[in-house]
Amino acid sequence: MLPEEEAHHAARVLRVSAGDEIVVVDGMGGWHRVVVDHVDRRSVAGHVVERRQGVGEPPYELTIALGLLKQRSRFEVFLEKAVELGVHEVVPLVTERTERERVKETRLQNILVAAMKQSLRSRLVELHEPTPLDELLALPAGTAGLICHEAVEPEASIRRALERSAEAMRLRVLVGPEGGFTDGEVEQARRSGYEVVSLGPRRLRAETAALTVAAIVLSAKNL
Amino acid sequence: MLPEEEAHHAARVLRVSAGDEIVVVDGMGGWHRVVVDHVDRRSVAGHVVERRQGVGEPPYELTIALGLLKQRSRFEVFLEKAVELGVHEVVPLVTERTERERVKETRLQNILVAAMKQSLRSRLVELHEPTPLDELLALPAGTAGLICHEAVEPEASIRRALERSAEAMRLRVLVGPEGGFTDGEVEQARRSGYEVVSLGPRRLRAETAALTVAAIVLSAKNL
Repeated sequence: MLPEEEAHHAARVLRVSAGDEIVVVDGMGGWHRVVVDHVDRRSVAGHVVERRQGVGEPPYELTIALGLLKQRSRFEVFLEKAVELGVHEVVPLVTERTERERVKETRLQNILVAAMKQSLRSRLVELHEPTPLDELLALPAGTAGLICHEAVEPEASIRRALERSAEAMRLRVLVGPEGGFTDGEVEQARRSGYEVVSLGPRRLRAETAALTVAAIVLSAKNL
Repeated sequence: MLPEEEAHHAARVLRVSAGDEIVVVDGMGGWHRVVVDHVDRRSVAGHVVERRQGVGEPPYELTIALGLLKQRSRFEVFLEKAVELGVHEVVPLVTERTERERVKETRLQNILVAAMKQSLRSRLVELHEPTPLDELLALPAGTAGLICHEAVEPEASIRRALERSAEAMRLRVLVGPEGGFTDGEVEQARRSGYEVVSLGPRRLRAETAALTVAAIVLSAKNL
């Protein structure tokens, strides 16, 4: 049985009918090929013909922490694209230059679910509560850390940093809000083990920087 | 003298005043450091103290042709990010699966100008008229061509294709609208010299695919 909201979407939007084969994911990596047995206005029922685990999920765990942005729509664009590109977790960051400390939880969850289905993933991206930078800084063992900063020598490209941390299978990347991180924040991150990297010579908007990180990292890892 | 609209922006939004140093670009690669002499409600005047050419412009010319999308806002998100990332030209494509043949020219030009200033470029990205795919296919000498397609072996990654065309300084990449290109269109492009490439195992929205191309190409070229 599909949950009511998904049943509605399957029956009314996708026009699923009895006998059709569909894919159902559980948001925890569970992937099921299902043959539909019964459809009415409120429910869709079927039986599982194949189970797999982790379909569409990269083995590499990329967490992106992005400063909360003034325009909610810009954070939302990033979130949708982060799911499509294969990001593992997203942390909305509260920093010295953020002007907001809250998100619209339901709206963002809806984006996560829609993008998971659209991109054929099987695991829902984990979205953290808005988190102050200093509470996030500690790096667990086996996790590499990068912090994006504009005022940095151009040799510090994210590509070279990725080559240096090639064995780590978990990476956390910090991207500031509009205006970036303060020098103090960058220094604090550096002392916590983060490498300072540049995304190139042009000035990117915060959400562009974050989705560029996702595109470059997942492409460099061939995932 | 700044043009009236820019004078208004400089005076009222950026609060420029006499004695300030500002950067003025002409959208054709001309970059000028200017000391402001006079500001009133309608005009800003100053004198040039330094001229440079091509500031913020990559030496590599990347053209992205993206199918026109049902939701205008998605094409607009792509266009803004394409400018920030350093794309040279954008072509809105008319293909078998596009449902639209027109764009809102003024709205898109405003996005190009705002993103040029935001990203510290000096050249306005050239936005073509909506163009049917077959009119665009011919590749000029010295230009490499790629076409993004979902149904392709995973070895055909865009990164490997870039390594193979490393000498070319001009690249044109075709990205389909929602639903992608038809097999016939892909075959036609292949016969015209385009290499068919994949952007990875997840299904990307059209505009996500296009901006992923921009991020990967310009990062791979270290520009």
